[in-house]
Amino acid sequence: MAALTLWTPPLLPTLDAELGAELRRTVDGKAKPPGALGRLEDLAVQMGAVQGRRDPRADDAVVLLFAGDHGLTAEGVSSYPSAVTTAMVQLILDGRASVNALAKAAGARIEVIDVGVASQLAPRAGLVCAKVRAGTANAAREPAMSKQECAAALDVGAAAVDRAVAAGADLIALGEMGIGNSAAASLLLHRLGPAPLDEAIGAGAGHDSAGLARKTRALETAARRCDATEPFEVLRQFGGLEIAAMAGAALAAAQARRVVVVDGFIASAAALVALRMRPELRDFCVFAHASAERGHALMLQRMEAAALLHLGMRLGEGTGAVLAFPILRAAANMLNEVASLAEVLESAT
Amino acid sequence: MAALTLWTPPLLPTLDAELGAELRRTVDGKAKPPGALGRLEDLAVQMGAVQGRRDPRADDAVVLLFAGDHGLTAEGVSSYPSAVTTAMVQLILDGRASVNALAKAAGARIEVIDVGVASQLAPRAGLVCAKVRAGTANAAREPAMSKQECAAALDVGAAAVDRAVAAGADLIALGEMGIGNSAAASLLLHRLGPAPLDEAIGAGAGHDSAGLARKTRALETAARRCDATEPFEVLRQFGGLEIAAMAGAALAAAQARRVVVVDGFIASAAALVALRMRPELRDFCVFAHASAERGHALMLQRMEAAALLHLGMRLGEGTGAVLAFPILRAAANMLNEVASLAEVLESAT
Repeated sequence: MAALTLWTPPLLPTLDAELGAELRRTVDGKAKPPGALGRLEDLAVQMGAVQGRRDPRADDAVVLLFAGDHGLTAEGVSSYPSAVTTAMVQLILDGRASVNALAKAAGARIEVIDVGVASQLAPRAGLVCAKVRAGTANAAREPAMSKQECAAALDVGAAAVDRAVAAGADLIALGEMGIGNSAAASLLLHRLGPAPLDEAIGAGAGHDSAGLARKTRALETAARRCDATEPFEVLRQFGGLEIAAMAGAALAAAQARRVVVVDGFIASAAALVALRMRPELRDFCVFAHASAERGHALMLQRMEAAALLHLGMRLGEGTGAVLAFPILRAAANMLNEVASLAEVLESAT
Repeated sequence: MAALTLWTPPLLPTLDAELGAELRRTVDGKAKPPGALGRLEDLAVQMGAVQGRRDPRADDAVVLLFAGDHGLTAEGVSSYPSAVTTAMVQLILDGRASVNALAKAAGARIEVIDVGVASQLAPRAGLVCAKVRAGTANAAREPAMSKQECAAALDVGAAAVDRAVAAGADLIALGEMGIGNSAAASLLLHRLGPAPLDEAIGAGAGHDSAGLARKTRALETAARRCDATEPFEVLRQFGGLEIAAMAGAALAAAQARRVVVVDGFIASAAALVALRMRPELRDFCVFAHASAERGHALMLQRMEAAALLHLGMRLGEGTGAVLAFPILRAAANMLNEVASLAEVLESAT
C-alpha cells in the first residue's frame, strides 16, 4: 500500500441533500410542466448542489488540456507518430485546432499543460510547462511511470485546477492531447472497469485491421505484465501522464466544489481512475458526450454515468466537453432566471 | 386543388452538389482523424451548402416564436387552459420564460409573433402583432381555419423570416407557444406522416390517463370529420395558426438559403407540413432535439430525420432549437478556422 501513502486523494465535500431537494423543488415549480426540460433540470440541480449555491454560476468556463506522450507508441498502438502530439499542441497554442474553434463558439478559455510531451516545447503564451517526464515508458515492457512521477502528474492536474479556480472558473473541463493515449485508456478500463480487454480496445485516432491487431497484442502484453487493481498502481503501470493529471484535476475540481466536465474516452478513463479512488466524485461529474470510440459506452456504464451529447465524436482535445458548456449555462440560467409556474397561473386567471 | 392555388409554396434553391463535395473534402482534410467530429462535420457541410458559402456563417441567431390558440381546447385536449398561452407570451416578453434563459446562454434573439392568440395582446416591445384570427376553430367539429386564414398564417411565417434575414440572421429557429398545439400536431402526424392516430398522440404538457383518453377521443372525432391528405388542406383542417406560420417560415428560410433549426414535436409537425409541400426542404433543416413527447420519434422517422440532441426535453417555446445554436457555431468555426492535417503532419516531420 506504499502507493496509497505516496499520493492521497483529497477528501471531497459532502453534498447537501437538503439543498439538492430544495433546488429540485425550485426547478419543478418553474413556469413549465414538471420535468419538461429533461436533463437540463438535472444539470441545474447538480450544479447548485456541487457549488453549494441556490444560484449556480456557469459563466466562466475553462478547458484544462493536458498533453503527454506514450512509450506504448513504440509497439505501434497508434496510426500517428508521437511527434503529432507536439504538432497538435503547437496548433492548439496557435488557436487553429478543433478545440479552439469549438471553445470560441462556447465562450471558453483553454489552458494547455505540458505534463509529459516527449519533445522539448519552447515557452509560449497559453502553455504551462509542468513536464514530469518526456513521455511515459513503454507500458508493454515496464511501468509507464514511477510512483513519484505518477504522484507528480496527479499534482500537476490539481495545480491547474487551483489556477483555474483562482482565475474565477465556474466550470472546468478536462481535455487531452497524446498520441497513443487511447491504448492507455483501454488498459485502465480493462483493469478498473473492469472490462474484458478485447471489449475495451477501439480504433483510437484510426486503425486498419492490422493496426488494431497490433494494438491488441501490445495491450495484451501490457496487461499480462502486471496484475495491479489498485487505482494509483494501475494508473502508474499503464499511464499516461496526461491521464494522471486529469484524474488529479477531477478530484481537485470536486474538492473546490466545481462541476467537472469530462470529455470522451481518454478523459473518462481519468475520471474512472479518480472515481475508483473517491466514488463520491461521481456526483461532481458531467460526462459531456458519448464518444464513438469503442469501449466508451462500457466505460460510462461501469461508472453508472450517462453521456449528455451523442454526436458521434471521437477526437479528444476536450472538444466534446466544450460543447457541454452552453448547455450547462442554459441550465443555470433556467434555475436563476425563469419565473415560477404559480406566478404565471395566477396572472392567467 | 383550390387549396394549392390559394397558397403556393416557394420554389427552393437547388443545393450545389459540387460545393457540398468540396466542403466535405475540406472537412475531411482538417487537422483531425477523418470523421472524428461526427455530426459537427455534417452540420458544417450542410450549412455551407445551404448558404452557398465556403465559409458558412452562424453568428447571428434568432428564434421566431409563433403564438396561437386552439379551438380544440374546448374538448379538453390540454391540461392547461388557453389563457396560459397569453400568460406565457407575456412571460416570454418579460424575458422570464425558459426560452429566454436558454436563448441568453446561446446568444440568440427572440421575436414573438402573435399569429393567433385568443386574447387581445397590447402592443409591446418584442411582440409582432400579426393575428390572423383569435385562435383556431374547434377542429373536432369544423375546419380549424378557412383557406384564406391558413394562407395568411403561412404568410405571417414568411414575413417573419424576411424581417429576420433583413436584420442579418444567419440561423433561424422555429419555436411556438400555444396551449393545445400538441393535439393539432398529432393530427398532422397522423394524416401527413402518415401514422396510426394512437401512435401519434402523447401527453403534451401533461395528462393523467383520463386526460389522455379525452384527448384521444377528441382527436378521433377530428380525424373522422375529414379525410384530407393534401398538406395545405390537412393544415387548415387541423391547425394551428402558429403551426402554419412555422411551416411558412421554414419554407421562406430555405428560400433565403438559411438553415432552419426545428424545435420539438410541434415545430417538427410544421416542418412535416412544409416538407410534404416541398420535399427538398429536408436538406435545409436541422432537427434540434428528440422530444420526449410520444410521437416525435415516429415523426422524425417519417421525415427521415435524425435529431441532434437527446436531452429528454418536451417544452416547446423553441427551447430545444436554441440549444443547437452553439453547436452550429462550433461546426461553422471548425470549417472556417481549423488548420489542415497536411499542414500539421508537415510540421511534425
